[in-house]
Amino acid sequence: MAKQTKTPRPKAATPKGFRDYFGTDVTERTEMLRRIAEVYDRYGFDALESAAVETVEALGKFLPDVDRPNAGVFAWQEGEEEGKGDWLALRYDLTAPLARVFAQHRNDLPTPYRRYAMGQVWRNEKPGPGRFRQFYQCDADTVGTASMAADAEICAMLADCMEVVGIPRGDYLIRVNNRKVLNGVLDAMGVTEAAQQADVLRTIDKFDKVGEAGVRELLGKGRLDASGAYIDGVGLSAAQAEPVIAFLTAKKTVLQRLHSEWEASPNDGSQDYKVLAWLLNIEMGAGRQKREQHTEASAKLLAKRTLAYLYEIVGDAEQGRKGVEELAQISDLLTAQGYGPDRIVLDPSVVRGLGYYTGPVFEAELTFEILDEKGRKRQFGSVAGGGRYDDLVARFTGQSVPAVGVSIGVDRLLAALREKNRMGGEAVGPVVVTVMDRDRMVDYQAMVAKLRKAGIRAEVYLGNPKSFGNQLKYADKRNSPAAVIEGADEKARGVVQVKDLVLGKKIAENATLQEWKERPSQAEIPRDDLVAHIKALLAGDK
Amino acid sequence: MAKQTKTPRPKAATPKGFRDYFGTDVTERTEMLRRIAEVYDRYGFDALESAAVETVEALGKFLPDVDRPNAGVFAWQEGEEEGKGDWLALRYDLTAPLARVFAQHRNDLPTPYRRYAMGQVWRNEKPGPGRFRQFYQCDADTVGTASMAADAEICAMLADCMEVVGIPRGDYLIRVNNRKVLNGVLDAMGVTEAAQQADVLRTIDKFDKVGEAGVRELLGKGRLDASGAYIDGVGLSAAQAEPVIAFLTAKKTVLQRLHSEWEASPNDGSQDYKVLAWLLNIEMGAGRQKREQHTEASAKLLAKRTLAYLYEIVGDAEQGRKGVEELAQISDLLTAQGYGPDRIVLDPSVVRGLGYYTGPVFEAELTFEILDEKGRKRQFGSVAGGGRYDDLVARFTGQSVPAVGVSIGVDRLLAALREKNRMGGEAVGPVVVTVMDRDRMVDYQAMVAKLRKAGIRAEVYLGNPKSFGNQLKYADKRNSPAAVIEGADEKARGVVQVKDLVLGKKIAENATLQEWKERPSQAEIPRDDLVAHIKALLAGDK
Repeated sequence: MAKQTKTPRPKAATPKGFRDYFGTDVTERTEMLRRIAEVYDRYGFDALESAAVETVEALGKFLPDVDRPNAGVFAWQEGEEEGKGDWLALRYDLTAPLARVFAQHRNDLPTPYRRYAMGQVWRNEKPGPGRFRQFYQCDADTVGTASMAADAEICAMLADCMEVVGIPRGDYLIRVNNRKVLNGVLDAMGVTEAAQQADVLRTIDKFDKVGEAGVRELLGKGRLDASGAYIDGVGLSAAQAEPVIAFLTAKKTVLQRLHSEWEASPNDGSQDYKVLAWLLNIEMGAGRQKREQHTEASAKLLAKRTLAYLYEIVGDAEQGRKGVEELAQISDLLTAQGYGPDRIVLDPSVVRGLGYYTGPVFEAELTFEILDEKGRKRQFGSVAGGGRYDDLVARFTGQSVPAVGVSIGVDRLLAALREKNRMGGEAVGPVVVTVMDRDRMVDYQAMVAKLRKAGIRAEVYLGNPKSFGNQLKYADKRNSPAAVIEGADEKARGVVQVKDLVLGKKIAENATLQEWKERPSQAEIPRDDLVAHIKALLAGDK
Repeated sequence: MAKQTKTPRPKAATPKGFRDYFGTDVTERTEMLRRIAEVYDRYGFDALESAAVETVEALGKFLPDVDRPNAGVFAWQEGEEEGKGDWLALRYDLTAPLARVFAQHRNDLPTPYRRYAMGQVWRNEKPGPGRFRQFYQCDADTVGTASMAADAEICAMLADCMEVVGIPRGDYLIRVNNRKVLNGVLDAMGVTEAAQQADVLRTIDKFDKVGEAGVRELLGKGRLDASGAYIDGVGLSAAQAEPVIAFLTAKKTVLQRLHSEWEASPNDGSQDYKVLAWLLNIEMGAGRQKREQHTEASAKLLAKRTLAYLYEIVGDAEQGRKGVEELAQISDLLTAQGYGPDRIVLDPSVVRGLGYYTGPVFEAELTFEILDEKGRKRQFGSVAGGGRYDDLVARFTGQSVPAVGVSIGVDRLLAALREKNRMGGEAVGPVVVTVMDRDRMVDYQAMVAKLRKAGIRAEVYLGNPKSFGNQLKYADKRNSPAAVIEGADEKARGVVQVKDLVLGKKIAENATLQEWKERPSQAEIPRDDLVAHIKALLAGDK
């Protein structure tokens, strides 16, 4: 029978839905955020770090599907016994705390207030594969201005952020839309009842998944989904559904029209039309190509035609016209700053889930293809999104404060960079100085101190030095580029052995005899040459 | 009568004991942590980021004064209704999570495992002035080795960290002691009962505050404290108390002995003694001087004498002798790496509060003087501390795993850097492009885009542009170095006005007429020269 212990040992495990991040998981994220912070700073945004903990009252209930008081957040009550104090909770995003900060400090803060924030947020949701209950957000918001220049600026900044972290132009696209246009479309459709509006919005959100035909079915009677289940439709007539279909497919329609214009005057040969035809190719799925050849004139032409078409769709609906006007302003501002359709485009199919957006919405999409878990090609998709929201601060002050912001999905963007091999893989481990004689630890430490002083990542093996094999296994686990060996014999002769572990691994795998000869994996060198030798080895010269 | 609203507005306030950090509060901390991470990395430590949330079970009860289950931590129970799931809590330090991580992943991690962690921790304590319930820690630990080389390495690394963040040599001192020596002293005193040992330890901890005479009184009958209250003593006889007094004043005694040796042979003139006499001056309070003149020989001599004196004090107590031996090893290792008493010293007065240390303990003390809130000079004091702890992982696995680590008090170190003017003050704000004509926002945005592209922090004023005065007030609040003005007249003539706001402020304060003439606070320049002009202005050339 097993021996019983009185108090069982605690389980060494993270709570469900939480995880640990090791090594490059941490350092690469830090580096990515550092680069983004530099862009935010250059745009005049100031850093803000609010506490992880807020009162439940201040946080409010902006999470989707919130019926119960504290559902969706991790919350607890202040005080020693229950019922005594405020309910506190971990923040679920960085926007709700911003609203609280702005309301609290509005007399001291500049207005408009441009701020950025980077940090963890927590969601008390059911964890799933790849779905964690703690994750990073990286936001920038401008509070206190209704000017579309603020929205345009954030789109430009988002494009800059993509490039600064290592997503090249052509591999991302900032897509911009306006909620007001969408509302105008609903007006034009005669869909005015709130419940039916919500149904239509939910359907629109499925456009990426089910396509034009699918949306048509879902807006009408319904459709069989892939699993064979029948999904009830919204019940609109085909004519009624037309404006929203026109809206969702606006980008395609505009490009087709431009293509026709160009075909009608093939001898025009104007560079603008050529570029547009070529843009069309991309959008119509003729494969990803570089989008860098657009001109300012072609950008203006595309924007002009898109806006004209949107005016067509919204018709006389006042809110819709206002929405298109705002998009026109954003478009002009971006074009003047040199951000053409190779980086930022008007795209009416962008909806963004969150209920609180009231005007322009935008997202950053990565357009390169990856293989999904089933080996199928698909686009990487959205890594950031945002928009204008005007009512968050009013909760506290009663005064509506216009605001616009963006949130970058840190983990997704990091995953994208790894897909593109712009980051990732193992970090270079430290050079490991092995311990051949445990009484000479002082010498080994002095050796490692010299390496460190020269800026080389290095350490002495501090485990039990009895087995030399274990020391090399350790170096291997550390992904060390080199091991240094100085036994009694080497000491007496004033030399050290340096084992090139990178080459060692390569040889073990597939190096040619030639490589072996040209770069012997172990070298005996004078002790005084150690720093120089390791430097050369790390630089790939040895 | 005031109008009543149905639901009262939420209060815009942080929960008690939490705060918001703005601008340079955030960016300077980030930069400091980045530099420390570089040092940790060079020493071969790997980054680890565990979740903020742990199970209460895994965290354990290492906080002082913990009688109630969840006191000291912010905790809540998993599940929709109470009583359903695990108790979760916010971590209160980074060491308890490390123990959990090591126990959980020990088969995948290299052993010894060197890891660093930087992040927030939370304490559910009564907040007070300057005492917050969320703060940063910045730790490095080596788990899985009993070698004193690990302890020595962390002391060296701590010294490097101080210098890399901007505390120059001479302004800090790493002080090293060993708990075993202290236990040996208790043995030598015949204090073996746990309660009395705790009383003695508490008294020792007051040494910095009450001095040698005060500790003598407190170990004996007791003493009147500054407020006039009588504090009961431990009740030891004067003879019994002697070893602990000798221990606490060891550093002084050793230096006095060395000074006597030197005086006894004034014609010896050996550099070692000279340096030691001079070190004595410092330690005896003859004023802070640079400590850079020590030699390796003088360092060895000081360590030798200190160790010899400690052997005297602990007598035959086995644990005490073992402790002195360990200090001797650490001293040898550090001397060989070039860390002399100008950076790291053996100092028996270091105790460190936390109960879980089992061997060497150390702290980083800043030795420069600051003025306290009452205008009195005092030393800045401790900014980091750590030591060896051997039982944290055993909670999970049953196997004792030796470990040693250090924790840097991020906020205190940052405060120290500000005291020394090595950091701090306001950040340089963005160049503000003012809006003279609201219809020409496109032009202003294009202008600011050019500045940003040149790496200059810049923004367009996005508030209501009606009052130009408000725009300049805004620029002032943003701490802008310059404002750019382009009205219709300037536009027509292809020029812009640049207001030098730094000089403007200076003139408003105390600039001389000469300065005013040499550097006019407003310049009219060709629009195309804007970037070059602002660059020169920021560099101080204009």
